[in-house]
Amino acid sequence: MPGTQTPTEPRRRRGGRSARVRSAVLQATLDELADAGYAALSLEAVARPAGVNKTSVYRRWGTRENLILEAMLERGSQQVPIPDTGTLERDLIQYGKAIATNTRASDVQAIIRAAASIQDPDSPIVDASRRFWTTRFGLASEMVKRAIERGEIPADTDPRAVIESVIAPIYFRLLMSRQSVGPTYVENLARVAVRAARAEA
Amino acid sequence: MPGTQTPTEPRRRRGGRSARVRSAVLQATLDELADAGYAALSLEAVARPAGVNKTSVYRRWGTRENLILEAMLERGSQQVPIPDTGTLERDLIQYGKAIATNTRASDVQAIIRAAASIQDPDSPIVDASRRFWTTRFGLASEMVKRAIERGEIPADTDPRAVIESVIAPIYFRLLMSRQSVGPTYVENLARVAVRAARAEA
Repeated sequence: MPGTQTPTEPRRRRGGRSARVRSAVLQATLDELADAGYAALSLEAVARPAGVNKTSVYRRWGTRENLILEAMLERGSQQVPIPDTGTLERDLIQYGKAIATNTRASDVQAIIRAAASIQDPDSPIVDASRRFWTTRFGLASEMVKRAIERGEIPADTDPRAVIESVIAPIYFRLLMSRQSVGPTYVENLARVAVRAARAEA
Repeated sequence: MPGTQTPTEPRRRRGGRSARVRSAVLQATLDELADAGYAALSLEAVARPAGVNKTSVYRRWGTRENLILEAMLERGSQQVPIPDTGTLERDLIQYGKAIATNTRASDVQAIIRAAASIQDPDSPIVDASRRFWTTRFGLASEMVKRAIERGEIPADTDPRAVIESVIAPIYFRLLMSRQSVGPTYVENLARVAVRAARAEA
């Protein structure tokens, strides 16, 4: 209903039927993944709760893998903004905490677990995961680049390695050792990451 | 056939039918997981290739979750010995490389991905994973404790944190970002872990 847009919502994004269908379908994808898991996910099962024809979903996405990639990219970048607090350690703490919170949501967790479960290297989900993480690391590297500009850490620091050292243990605990990730844990990860970067000089 | 044991095999482990059944069933579990995945795994599907009655598998393990835990514990501890090279960095490099190699085997990978895929916190697999990692961290902590005794790193170093900083990125790449883990990558992880531990003093 684009006609309902009012002057108080000047930045409302494309509110047309197409955008609403997309949003409903992506949310239904996440919900279905959370409820039924990847093995049971079908375009039909997604179309129904989204209130959309199965044919429309087929036409627009074609495969469940395409659906999952789009839901993944949308949900992952939306929820984890890149902080700019003035110090690398504080940036990494905020960022790590946002990641930890995001992964606690059951619909996000379902997509993470579905992606992790796929062994076939030729699966489109594997390709989607790689693209997702390349995008996320590219965005997050800004925190490290700014710290280099401020002279906090050596100029030849590898941004990706710093980000990975904060992010990887959060996912390891979620997927493998099943331990909780509290604020103190994230603060330690960030402190160690910064000290390690300085010690590499 | 315990009677076939000869004096040249004095340390051969319990070679009875029970041990052979166990070994065949655990291997069939890993193979089935690799071929069909967790969702399709049934005690029946495991019994057939192991050449064992379905009833025997039911009697001994009861659930597929019990089967998976036992296969996990057996395969995980067998294949990744704890090195003792004289320096923490070399120990961590050897250990990290052994983990990376182990996770490349498709039957091991299948069990890792099956464990990661489970969202229900009450699943016996979640409990099995926690026990598996507690055991593995306990064993691996020896490397860090020896380094403390040698005075390589501060006495208050947290062994688990050091091990986790080497292991977590290997699993993160396997399960999430789908990047390869080469020798240089593991060497960097080990070097950074040791420097970070020293810098914490």
